Amino acid sequence: MTLPAHVTVKEVGPRDGLQNDASFVETEDKVAWIEQMIDAGAAYIECTSFVHPKWVPALKDHQELMQMFKRRPGVTYAALVPNMKGLEGALRSGVDEVSVFMSASETHNQKNINKTIAETHPVLEEVIREAKAAGCSVRAYISTAFACPYEGTMAPETVLKAVDPLLEAGINELSIGDTIGAAAPLEVDTALKQWVQHVPKEQIAMHFHDTRGTALANVYAALQQGVTTFDAAGAGLGGCPYAPGAGGNLATEDLLYFLHRQGIETGMDEAAYLEAAEFILPRTTNAAPGKVLLASRGEKEAKL
Amino acid sequence: MTLPAHVTVKEVGPRDGLQNDASFVETEDKVAWIEQMIDAGAAYIECTSFVHPKWVPALKDHQELMQMFKRRPGVTYAALVPNMKGLEGALRSGVDEVSVFMSASETHNQKNINKTIAETHPVLEEVIREAKAAGCSVRAYISTAFACPYEGTMAPETVLKAVDPLLEAGINELSIGDTIGAAAPLEVDTALKQWVQHVPKEQIAMHFHDTRGTALANVYAALQQGVTTFDAAGAGLGGCPYAPGAGGNLATEDLLYFLHRQGIETGMDEAAYLEAAEFILPRTTNAAPGKVLLASRGEKEAKL
Repeated sequence: MTLPAHVTVKEVGPRDGLQNDASFVETEDKVAWIEQMIDAGAAYIECTSFVHPKWVPALKDHQELMQMFKRRPGVTYAALVPNMKGLEGALRSGVDEVSVFMSASETHNQKNINKTIAETHPVLEEVIREAKAAGCSVRAYISTAFACPYEGTMAPETVLKAVDPLLEAGINELSIGDTIGAAAPLEVDTALKQWVQHVPKEQIAMHFHDTRGTALANVYAALQQGVTTFDAAGAGLGGCPYAPGAGGNLATEDLLYFLHRQGIETGMDEAAYLEAAEFILPRTTNAAPGKVLLASRGEKEAKL
Repeated sequence: MTLPAHVTVKEVGPRDGLQNDASFVETEDKVAWIEQMIDAGAAYIECTSFVHPKWVPALKDHQELMQMFKRRPGVTYAALVPNMKGLEGALRSGVDEVSVFMSASETHNQKNINKTIAETHPVLEEVIREAKAAGCSVRAYISTAFACPYEGTMAPETVLKAVDPLLEAGINELSIGDTIGAAAPLEVDTALKQWVQHVPKEQIAMHFHDTRGTALANVYAALQQGVTTFDAAGAGLGGCPYAPGAGGNLATEDLLYFLHRQGIETGMDEAAYLEAAEFILPRTTNAAPGKVLLASRGEKEAKL
């Protein structure tokens, strides 16, 4: 069994973890948290989303937030954008990378962004083209890649149909998401074997949710297929919009423990990351932190 | 990737899940829960522990409990026994199988059962011999097989040193436990490759704890090595004595979801198991149920 020696962890907590949070986290707290994660070694942070505040009020401070960082060399500051208007805001704030998003599932895509997949492609293609012309790299999220809350299990080919036009438009990276945390590793294995024939595995990031406890098993299956980039959210923030109270994003601390325990380097410091998680958690409504955090709290209690 | 077509799930919740619970679950509730799990397809139940009530007061009703079942054909009713006195009680109550236990780690073994490993072997050997002479099958638990809270990471050879005398004494099955939920799948893969050279894989059960979210990833690694028997605890009962508040035993519901999602048969019904979990949870102090249970509650809430 040979696993990659190094993995790139992309921190999406400030966007994906906070976007649905019922409390508005103060901008200076968001910045402080992001700075703590960068201090702990995070080299990629998806900081916010340039979506209209009407849709994502928790991230309405995107413009202000992006201006509060002292940018550090070697760190990629990214933001999600839904359309050209979002891109303009993101470019004004000087992001390094923008993320676009759509679903593999037709129904989920329509419910989430109010467009068919066919209507979505040209919008995203324009954003990708303009972002690249402005010197930004572009990542594309494909959500509901394994299962859709409306359509059920998705076939791997369905994902490729959504992805192909984005690849042609020049995206730098594809982040393939198990949005409702339903996938198990055998299907990750099967799907990746098909996907890597269309997309170089160096361009693939996997984005797992831990709603049913399968996220790290899925990471393991992807590592076995040579994938070396994974998304995760500090403190496991985010929950699951389709199952309130359940876990959502894989916690970055859980991913770090898992990788480091197997000798895989990330350049990130798990203990410092746990401290950052303890900083942000009480500022959110999240009730399902990662398991390593709970274990770390319990170990401290046991020593008292 | 070929995984086994069928897996045997051994339900250990009534013993391993309840033994450390701070509340005493009434005997009739224990029986009702066990009956619900059998109705849901569980064919192996570790019902209780014949340990002195001073050490495990939560299971002090072992004798009474075992007499309350109407035994069903095809179901194995098992109990944990620490020594000859425990075995006598278990045999009087007509168990089908007894489990003995020890640790791979010398320090953990001494702290847990107040004997060195060398002192433990003859005690267990006598129990194994006598149990088999009485017509019981015998399972042996080896705890701290990957990591010990006192000694840290364990080498796979250390486990074999503990196990060899038990194999010679004629145990039918070996349940290898990641007692503190620290292992990651690469070490499961490495260790199993070594262990299956000494123990036929048909005799190996893996017993994972989900303290750090790695349990299902470890199950996946073991499935890849052809292991087909896994322990789990209904409702994820048990917690971790070394990290209060953290998760302990892998929840049976999480394991069932995981296996069924990959087309692996268990003969067990996940929905009925979730109902059994909802029955027992409020009767315990457990605050960390399995993830599938939380997802199922959330999905119901989302539909209201």
